[in-house]
Amino acid sequence: MANLFHKQYLMTAGPTPIPPAVSQAMAQPVLYHRAPAFVEVYARCLSRLKDVFQTQNDVLVFAASGSGAMESAVANLVRPGEPVLVASCGKFGERWVELAEAFGAEVVHHDAGWGNRVEPAELERLLAEDSGVEVVFTTLSETSTGVVNDIQALTEVAHAAGALIAVDAVSGLGAVPIPQDDWGVDVVVSGSQKALMCPPGLAFAGVNEAALARAEESPGRRAYFDWGATATGQRKDPPDSPFTPAVTLFMGLDVALEMIEREGLEDVFERHRVLGRAARAAAKALDLDAFGPEDENANVVTAIKLPEGIDGAAVPKLMRDRFGVTIAGGQGKLKGRIARIAHCGYFAPFDIVTTFAAFEMTLRELGHDVELGTGVGAAQAVFLEAGVPAAAPA
Amino acid sequence: MANLFHKQYLMTAGPTPIPPAVSQAMAQPVLYHRAPAFVEVYARCLSRLKDVFQTQNDVLVFAASGSGAMESAVANLVRPGEPVLVASCGKFGERWVELAEAFGAEVVHHDAGWGNRVEPAELERLLAEDSGVEVVFTTLSETSTGVVNDIQALTEVAHAAGALIAVDAVSGLGAVPIPQDDWGVDVVVSGSQKALMCPPGLAFAGVNEAALARAEESPGRRAYFDWGATATGQRKDPPDSPFTPAVTLFMGLDVALEMIEREGLEDVFERHRVLGRAARAAAKALDLDAFGPEDENANVVTAIKLPEGIDGAAVPKLMRDRFGVTIAGGQGKLKGRIARIAHCGYFAPFDIVTTFAAFEMTLRELGHDVELGTGVGAAQAVFLEAGVPAAAPA
Repeated sequence: MANLFHKQYLMTAGPTPIPPAVSQAMAQPVLYHRAPAFVEVYARCLSRLKDVFQTQNDVLVFAASGSGAMESAVANLVRPGEPVLVASCGKFGERWVELAEAFGAEVVHHDAGWGNRVEPAELERLLAEDSGVEVVFTTLSETSTGVVNDIQALTEVAHAAGALIAVDAVSGLGAVPIPQDDWGVDVVVSGSQKALMCPPGLAFAGVNEAALARAEESPGRRAYFDWGATATGQRKDPPDSPFTPAVTLFMGLDVALEMIEREGLEDVFERHRVLGRAARAAAKALDLDAFGPEDENANVVTAIKLPEGIDGAAVPKLMRDRFGVTIAGGQGKLKGRIARIAHCGYFAPFDIVTTFAAFEMTLRELGHDVELGTGVGAAQAVFLEAGVPAAAPA
Repeated sequence: MANLFHKQYLMTAGPTPIPPAVSQAMAQPVLYHRAPAFVEVYARCLSRLKDVFQTQNDVLVFAASGSGAMESAVANLVRPGEPVLVASCGKFGERWVELAEAFGAEVVHHDAGWGNRVEPAELERLLAEDSGVEVVFTTLSETSTGVVNDIQALTEVAHAAGALIAVDAVSGLGAVPIPQDDWGVDVVVSGSQKALMCPPGLAFAGVNEAALARAEESPGRRAYFDWGATATGQRKDPPDSPFTPAVTLFMGLDVALEMIEREGLEDVFERHRVLGRAARAAAKALDLDAFGPEDENANVVTAIKLPEGIDGAAVPKLMRDRFGVTIAGGQGKLKGRIARIAHCGYFAPFDIVTTFAAFEMTLRELGHDVELGTGVGAAQAVFLEAGVPAAAPA
């Protein structure tokens, strides 16, 4: 029989699907990084990134994975032998611990538990106990569990205790609000391959003056990820990069950021809000629990607890191999226990429809009792309720 | 009048031009980095990289500029407060000094001078003086001057003194021979955007067991660029990456490495040899001196001393703005004094013809007395002498 499901769908929270216009831009002939044609793109990207970070600060760009931007925060803010606090609630939060330890920090680790939020009151209590902590590292959207933390409240608590705060927003930036300047977040790091709709390979760090000043006070132990060197280059007119920038990725980023600008950042957030709501409604209609607390802001990835009776690890594998729909399963201690449905970046209602249709069919194939269309129908209802644009004039 | 020169030509030594097949591969829909379809590409790239590095060692891959691979060598080999020796002969060699100092080394810096080679006898003398040196950092192809060092001899000298050697082959690897295992080079670092015919964004480090062992003895001060972590991931079956790999760049790299495999590495070197010879012959025919020593191995970029009477800084600018041909001028202390004609990666005879045609016309426009076609003609003669393949059977 013909394979009905030959067509492939990337539905993961990173790498996320790339808009065709972005792919086309990256396939253009490569430009010399010092040629005016590229410098123009580079300058425009740096400016557009500030809009997405909602900041007047420098948004420093590195050729690296998102983890490279996290390392830049650690390498520039950590001082060997001094304490820092990591407030984590999943795999990516724990990466802050590994990085900070590698750079010689005394790490005070608050593990809120996988699937929980970091509670601001708990952070406040810990900072009161450990008065020597000058930097707090935490996570906006914990991709391993779908949890989104209240960065505004955590920032207030950190600042009240006299500490800076650095936030991993790799999967959250551009999907859920983190207005850096309004909330006064000192450092926001992100990557190109999530809500910014580009391939992996560019890493970003929005850094305020306090963070830059702390870095400057303690030079060394870094070069590639040195904020001062990169800020100096980027502040030139025209802006410059201390190392060869990943030119094709910038060509794509320019187009992706223009798409975000055209859609409007608030509308981008609203789209993610509706997609998240639809995913949670679909899970509920299938009598499955979303992992983590009920949260109207958890709009990056929806982690769904898999039914007890089936082989959980088989779910993403079967969805991909049989139906051509690639989603992520659980990582680390959640392996085989959850399915992660992404809605981060270049995602739209019918991506949620497709993903849940494949998810339902997969559960049925694995022997779980599912009424086909139930989850999909619940998602459709959310979309209609959110409002459908009027038909274009004929 | 119509602009005859609207068509653009990238003739720099990095980023270098990208073959259309590579661009096309990168424009395909992005893959999830843990999906079998990508893991297959990833594994094949890791294996093909070993062929280009001519090694059985691990070739570790980072999402970074080439400088990131240099930093990995420093972060893994340097121990704070201990001496290392940097043998440099230009801008990129000096980057080793900056990196090693940032990581706390006591740097013994042998500056052979811009435009000179590093002399093995001089390295031998210095290592005899500074017996505490355990690592030597140097450069294969110094892109700022066109000089190519004798890495085989420098490796022998370093090893005789009991030191490891780490070589920046960012612009040299895949253009001029550096058979890592035959010569016993401990560390060879490179990047995607030079002879490997890809955009910037992937950095490589071919590391032997001695280098890995030294890194392992002194952990910390690094995470993103940690060799041990990356080697552990890459040695798994199937191979894995500790951080999200730059998937689209790998898609391109796979195609580029296949092109190198199909052409044959020795034929690739021979092509670069003929292109380098043609560029030097063209310069000579124009009564201009190649910068640096006469060298049959300097086949990555030809640096040409510009005539005294003209505004040297105007040469690359005019070539680009008037004729659409982008080359690089001099960097740092050579600004305005040289033009750098690249022949590194996806370059063929008519690229040299085009570049010298534009170069001659530019010199004429700037008031230098040039008989048009002289340099081009000398290059053509070299190409014919090198042999033209027989016509394909009709």
